[in-house]
Amino acid sequence: MANRIGAESGAATTAAVERLTTPASFSVALEALRAQGRSVGLVPTMGALHEGHASLIRRAAAECDAVAVTVFVNPLQFGESEDFDRYPRTFDADAELAAACGARLLFAPPVEEMYPGGVVTTVHVDGPALGLEGESRPGHFDGVATVVAKLFALAGRCRAYFGEKDFQQLAVVRRMAADLSFPVEVVGCRTVREADGLALSSRNALIDPADRDAAPLLYHALQQGAAAVSGGATTPATIARVMAQALGTDPRLDIDYAVAVDPATFNAPDTFGPGDEVRLLVAARLGSVRLIDNLGARVPAPATTSTREADPACAGA
Amino acid sequence: MANRIGAESGAATTAAVERLTTPASFSVALEALRAQGRSVGLVPTMGALHEGHASLIRRAAAECDAVAVTVFVNPLQFGESEDFDRYPRTFDADAELAAACGARLLFAPPVEEMYPGGVVTTVHVDGPALGLEGESRPGHFDGVATVVAKLFALAGRCRAYFGEKDFQQLAVVRRMAADLSFPVEVVGCRTVREADGLALSSRNALIDPADRDAAPLLYHALQQGAAAVSGGATTPATIARVMAQALGTDPRLDIDYAVAVDPATFNAPDTFGPGDEVRLLVAARLGSVRLIDNLGARVPAPATTSTREADPACAGA
Repeated sequence: MANRIGAESGAATTAAVERLTTPASFSVALEALRAQGRSVGLVPTMGALHEGHASLIRRAAAECDAVAVTVFVNPLQFGESEDFDRYPRTFDADAELAAACGARLLFAPPVEEMYPGGVVTTVHVDGPALGLEGESRPGHFDGVATVVAKLFALAGRCRAYFGEKDFQQLAVVRRMAADLSFPVEVVGCRTVREADGLALSSRNALIDPADRDAAPLLYHALQQGAAAVSGGATTPATIARVMAQALGTDPRLDIDYAVAVDPATFNAPDTFGPGDEVRLLVAARLGSVRLIDNLGARVPAPATTSTREADPACAGA
Repeated sequence: MANRIGAESGAATTAAVERLTTPASFSVALEALRAQGRSVGLVPTMGALHEGHASLIRRAAAECDAVAVTVFVNPLQFGESEDFDRYPRTFDADAELAAACGARLLFAPPVEEMYPGGVVTTVHVDGPALGLEGESRPGHFDGVATVVAKLFALAGRCRAYFGEKDFQQLAVVRRMAADLSFPVEVVGCRTVREADGLALSSRNALIDPADRDAAPLLYHALQQGAAAVSGGATTPATIARVMAQALGTDPRLDIDYAVAVDPATFNAPDTFGPGDEVRLLVAARLGSVRLIDNLGARVPAPATTSTREADPACAGA
């Protein structure tokens, strides 16, 4: 079995972060921390860490006594035609960044440690996993839910930090954790962006430099969608059209979807009501890279107290 | 929300066993025990506890510092035409038996505590879950895997005791626990039987007294199958025929299956080799009750060392 780093002992110390490669050593290490009375923060990643991940690790370090970062490019969540093989791997830099941001443990198992007997058991999520990414990437969310369930089972009681960049994934993970009764509090964190608005993503490294100037258009389209919501647009179709038009201004972008949905259910109502939260989500292909982004908006509340807010029976809604 | 026992605090002490009804209180209680350095034994049941369950609880109490018994009739693992509504419920007697056998905690959540938001996330197992019960009861093992995953997520690191009576379920749970990386050691325990050979089961209470004398025929058929294996039968079809003939002697038994399989894979090979372990499994309907049973057997080893054992390349096989 070819493990790069300390497979015999399951551990080797490099820089300020302890590297673990076996699931058993990871589980035992976190249990030992809790036995010492320390709270645990978990930051699951696929590596190729960037400033977005750094913000998750720093927040976890601020809120928890000990932070574990996991780095695992999970084959189960990539479709056959997707970019598993060329997904960026920058392990040594990841370890340095994790340590610099306050992580104590780095769990980076080889694939054969995570799926030693092949994939016989899978976790399936309906609800928030249907549609959008779930539709464009069949099997993707089952792969995500399965590997995150494994990480949660190994980690035990903790707070787990995920970026809002993958907003639907965050909803799927949150639902999975609640449904399977993991003692894990899932924490969503704001998307970190380049100065031009492009959401940070490990996949950005794969964008052809000649196409790079088109990438921020996803965020600009979301901003225009949010402006439409603020300006009084209340039907998902109208808001979606605004975003699609913005994306359509650059022919290099091949739109997959541009939608406005309820952030809890991922369903598009006939119309959003006053004060409703709206989540705007877009996906587009740019050259060989598929980009996604999202943004929250809120329908303006009416000047007077709405019927809904005035009805005591709906106070908790 | 209608909880029968102490939903407010999540706990109420009756007899020597602490009763818990909320998942959160159960998770916290077991974590507290481990924090005190105690090992945890878990005995998941659907209640209607009998001497078979008692043997699981006693073994757990002998091997672990603190034992938790769970009682939950899981709707997810019953088919629409199955006996969820009439499945026996004997909660007070269960609590007494659990306490008498050395259990410290009894977790008995109402359905709405286990599935508060409906069933959106499910755990699916292939491999050992295919065929036999998996084929006769579509969705059954997904229901079992899902609820046991929840119990394992809540319980955390422990040893979990299951009876061999549900041999395929034991294999499914073992596989699920390993695949999802739960820090749980799944322990299989021998089937407990009535004097006449009938395997103890909560469903036995549902057998029509007029049919009761036909029930031990399942075990007798398994014994005849085992005798055939000992006597030199090596093809699954031959062994199955012996068992089916035995079951067929009483017309009240409606045979579902009678098979001889590899106990690890649940596949039937063309022929079993010398020294091979064989699992014999039968299922039959008796009146309105469906009964299952199983027994291990082993193909006699040849007098001389076999080729397989002599081949160093196969030493680990």
